[in-house]
Amino acid sequence: MDSFATTSIQRPCSSVIAGAGDDCAVLDIGLPDRFLLFKTDAVVEGIHFESDTEPERVGHKALGRCLSDVAAMAGQPTAALVTLALPPKFDAKWVERFYAGMGTLARCYDVAIPGGEVSTNPERKVISVSLIGTVAKEISVRRSGARVGDAIFVTGELGGSLSGRHLDFEPRVLEGQWLASHFAIHAMIDLSDGLAGDLRHILRASNIGAELLSEAIPISRAAKLRAREGSASKPPLLAALSDGEDFELLFTLASRNAVALLDEWKKAFPKVRLSCIGKIIAGSSLKLRDKDGSRELTLGGYVHFDEPRA
Amino acid sequence: MDSFATTSIQRPCSSVIAGAGDDCAVLDIGLPDRFLLFKTDAVVEGIHFESDTEPERVGHKALGRCLSDVAAMAGQPTAALVTLALPPKFDAKWVERFYAGMGTLARCYDVAIPGGEVSTNPERKVISVSLIGTVAKEISVRRSGARVGDAIFVTGELGGSLSGRHLDFEPRVLEGQWLASHFAIHAMIDLSDGLAGDLRHILRASNIGAELLSEAIPISRAAKLRAREGSASKPPLLAALSDGEDFELLFTLASRNAVALLDEWKKAFPKVRLSCIGKIIAGSSLKLRDKDGSRELTLGGYVHFDEPRA
Repeated sequence: MDSFATTSIQRPCSSVIAGAGDDCAVLDIGLPDRFLLFKTDAVVEGIHFESDTEPERVGHKALGRCLSDVAAMAGQPTAALVTLALPPKFDAKWVERFYAGMGTLARCYDVAIPGGEVSTNPERKVISVSLIGTVAKEISVRRSGARVGDAIFVTGELGGSLSGRHLDFEPRVLEGQWLASHFAIHAMIDLSDGLAGDLRHILRASNIGAELLSEAIPISRAAKLRAREGSASKPPLLAALSDGEDFELLFTLASRNAVALLDEWKKAFPKVRLSCIGKIIAGSSLKLRDKDGSRELTLGGYVHFDEPRA
Repeated sequence: MDSFATTSIQRPCSSVIAGAGDDCAVLDIGLPDRFLLFKTDAVVEGIHFESDTEPERVGHKALGRCLSDVAAMAGQPTAALVTLALPPKFDAKWVERFYAGMGTLARCYDVAIPGGEVSTNPERKVISVSLIGTVAKEISVRRSGARVGDAIFVTGELGGSLSGRHLDFEPRVLEGQWLASHFAIHAMIDLSDGLAGDLRHILRASNIGAELLSEAIPISRAAKLRAREGSASKPPLLAALSDGEDFELLFTLASRNAVALLDEWKKAFPKVRLSCIGKIIAGSSLKLRDKDGSRELTLGGYVHFDEPRA
């Protein structure tokens, strides 16, 4: 550093409101009524998509994952930048179709894509998307606000996303904004690691426990079908608890507001299922209740259904 | 999309001021006096750094490249997010040292690193950094403002960056801000592709030509040394014109301000060389003038010095 004093430049005041451990980084950069949201996420060929996956769906997924994180904070996405690390002899047509898929989703949510860069990764495609958005300060939702007695809700249906939904899901951007602007949402997260895993993130951040009602968990048709066809190794309930990449919203609010929420939701989003799946309890454990009683879910959401019940 | 009208959410007004083709995307997101800058950039093992490169230097370079782009827009960096795509059995110590190197540079410029994610890339490390920053609207600089008669300046010394400087360079963040807040800078860019290549970006964006003075181009000691030792295949002047990753600032301003700039610069940055290397001319060609006259530089900055002069 040289003799030009760093203090001689008028620096804008900015501060980190939430960092690692929430769905997005939350920054106060001096916008009058809003926080800035900032998120980055990567998809990798052979892991998050296959070599023969339609490029449009890869583009949809790559952006959709970031949008889902902004949704979980009740935010409005603004702009995305894309880094494509591609093998040297990449197919320009693939890139074109990738951007077409991403562009279609971006237009749905007024997201600008004002740039991007292409780099080289010799062996496979690695795609990193950065997204910024904003959220009104008064509706900003975190993972850490769940309280004892809260009702736990989830949008949509869970499990079996690998059958195709992980490439075509609709990020719950409108739903997230609507929820936080109409109800006092205490905590929210998007489901990327599976219901049990992501609920644990809320519980840990809020220092609290939860009890889920086995019968209330909305199981997707794909999860049931996969179990029936033998293409999944787990029963449908376990799939709904532990399969990743559902990209639905999981949130809690005071149970006295639960009925009003269900009523209003049906009018606002008649095509999207909303389920009350349990409640927040004291302690730190995650329990599952069914007709035989309540017992603790093991780490990662896996329950050994073939073992004799305690 | 469902029946919840998208218009029922109050959307913040935001617009893209500059997109692909400038150093950063520039967005107006409603900050009273400032634009938001948004940049993403990746470094790849085996391409931008080697397997045995000290991880601290990789961290420095990965963030430094983005900072250099913010510098070229006279911006103040705010926060960065990091995506590490690593082979499954990565060395945790490597990641720790990488973040230490990045963190040291981040602290120098008040850049928060409020998060990041680790993904898998089986064969090699791919590191993508996203950076946001802001710039006062009245000093925001683009590539497209160069005018006939402008003097062309460059900071530092050029060429031979591969000898080590590409891993240790100091991004010209303070210099960029100082320049734009003290002088009417018409166009600016950071040197990543080499002097000739990056000057062409300014010329194309400004629809204008330039003439460089061969003797005025500041050649780095590394470029001279590499030529002398035979480790570079090109003479030092050609290295200064065409080597990448200098990460210096190249800019233009009205030539009547050139002397005042040189005077003030010496007081502000006594340790950083500043050179007037040529002028903006009408037309669209990039010329190099030496004692034998002026002639056009070929594409990419390569001049065939062994060919008979025209």
